Amino acid sequence: MRKIHVIGIGAGDPDQLTLQAVKALRSTDVFFILDKGEEKSDLVQLRRDILDAHIPDGAYRLVEARDPDRDRAAGGSAYSPAVGDWRSRRADIYEDLIARELGEEESGAFLVWGDPALYDSTLGILEEILERGAVTFTYDVVPGISSVSALAARHRTGLNRVARPVQITTGRRLAEGFPEGVDDVVVMLDAHQVFRQYADADDDMDVYWGAYIGTADEILISGPLAEAAPRITSARAEARARKGWIMDTYLLRRRLRDER
Amino acid sequence: MRKIHVIGIGAGDPDQLTLQAVKALRSTDVFFILDKGEEKSDLVQLRRDILDAHIPDGAYRLVEARDPDRDRAAGGSAYSPAVGDWRSRRADIYEDLIARELGEEESGAFLVWGDPALYDSTLGILEEILERGAVTFTYDVVPGISSVSALAARHRTGLNRVARPVQITTGRRLAEGFPEGVDDVVVMLDAHQVFRQYADADDDMDVYWGAYIGTADEILISGPLAEAAPRITSARAEARARKGWIMDTYLLRRRLRDER
Ligand SMILES: C[S@@+](CC[C@H](N)C(=O)[O-])C[C@H]1O[C@@H](n2cnc3c(N)ncnc32)[C@H](O)[C@@H]1O
Ligand SMILES: C[S@@+](CC[C@H](N)C(=O)[O-])C[C@H]1O[C@@H](n2cnc3c(N)ncnc32)[C@H](O)[C@@H]1O
Repeated sequence: MRKIHVIGIGAGDPDQLTLQAVKALRSTDVFFILDKGEEKSDLVQLRRDILDAHIPDGAYRLVEARDPDRDRAAGGSAYSPAVGDWRSRRADIYEDLIARELGEEESGAFLVWGDPALYDSTLGILEEILERGAVTFTYDVVPGISSVSALAARHRTGLNRVARPVQITTGRRLAEGFPEGVDDVVVMLDAHQVFRQYADADDDMDVYWGAYIGTADEILISGPLAEAAPRITSARAEARARKGWIMDTYLLRRRLRDER
Repeated sequence: MRKIHVIGIGAGDPDQLTLQAVKALRSTDVFFILDKGEEKSDLVQLRRDILDAHIPDGAYRLVEARDPDRDRAAGGSAYSPAVGDWRSRRADIYEDLIARELGEEESGAFLVWGDPALYDSTLGILEEILERGAVTFTYDVVPGISSVSALAARHRTGLNRVARPVQITTGRRLAEGFPEGVDDVVVMLDAHQVFRQYADADDDMDVYWGAYIGTADEILISGPLAEAAPRITSARAEARARKGWIMDTYLLRRRLRDER
């Protein structure tokens, strides 16, 4: 039976790899890497560096394929169906790769950025392939350090405050309003710096922002939101122009009554 | 200047340690371990095993102290102040340990269960000690695999669904009502199996539960909540009676309209 490892590799620092991930890498015959296009090729390179660092003598097979382009034009309520289509197209590619490149007795691996449990489609795609029934395999998941954990560590802060909840959400959701019932919100996948929406309205929020966390390009900015927002906006624009792409995440934290 | 590493060690599986954590362990002179009393001594032993596995020749100093007893009787609105007192008493102990046991040029480390960013008081305590001003040190944080990531990996599920948020909260909070605006909720620190509160009311929820995740005692149960809740309750009671203590976490997932 074919075996697949879905391996979380951390969010940028190759030393965020766990010992369990290293063992899984070393028990893998074929690695599947999907390239999202030129801009993100640094991220593909990081995966190659990880393989070279941990697999003796380069004794591994690497299969690269091009990710289908997500329909970026689709916005608003069209978002989920577009994601669904894109996932199915991705499932087609993965299914084909597994069928063609992975022998019946071999094990393959997908190296997933951060933690496979957060805003990543790999698990959903593997389930979709298994449901289709044309290719069979077993799979397991190796958890990874998410960009959320990495953000908190670099800012040396907790995600939650004592006995209180924390929510993890997307820029798109945050644009619809500040989540109910929580004062600590981590925002991922925000291409529009939605935090600015809250920088004027409230002066009781702090922000902990990070870009390219764990890499040589890491930028960290924190402080009261109203004051930090413009600094983040300009640092982000500058970095994005320089590198051609950006990955950033932030924690918005509303001050509690006794902290004001 | 004294240097302190706050090192996330993962939530049970010693292979969840990251390479960064191993490097930090190896650059540490003195380890501080706080024992929470008999029941949790397995957890102290796991820390010792980690040190023995990664530090050559047992060349490390270990300082053990007894954690102050948290006032468990305090409930309801008294919760936060009790936690505050407990944190201050803990800060007294840590401050004393650092001052007495850590030389001016040495580095010390606290090995934190899971990820130091989730429901852990170490960072808050170190900040409190620095504010007091009697002992000075610098510190950094090494993120760890949280029990939340470990839970999701073992159940091979994501924490969020596509483009949707996830909230991480406590049993105490969940008892006050299902969080607003989210359909995916991870519950930690639940001594009272609050999920049962939702097992009767709704028949549109799934649960992914895990106890002692990553250890030899690991138990995983998942399924529709109404059906799984009694199985979890009895497995939990049995395990708790056998081992004398339990650590469990779960994800409650409300089915979305198109999945019903
Ligand atoms: C598709 S999600 C994948 C998240 C990933 N599975 C994880 O656990 O971090 C991509 C988002 O993760 C965040 N992200 C990932 N790596 C990051 C990094 N090194 N620094 C800052 N943000 C990062 C950004 O918010 C980005 O939009
Ligand atoms: C004080 S919190 C510490 C959380 C830790 N910092 C983390 O990142 O997992 C303790 C809670 O974590 C959860 N937990 C920790 N380790 C666990 C494990 N191995 N299995 C299941 N739950 C665990 C339980 O909900 C427990 O009540």
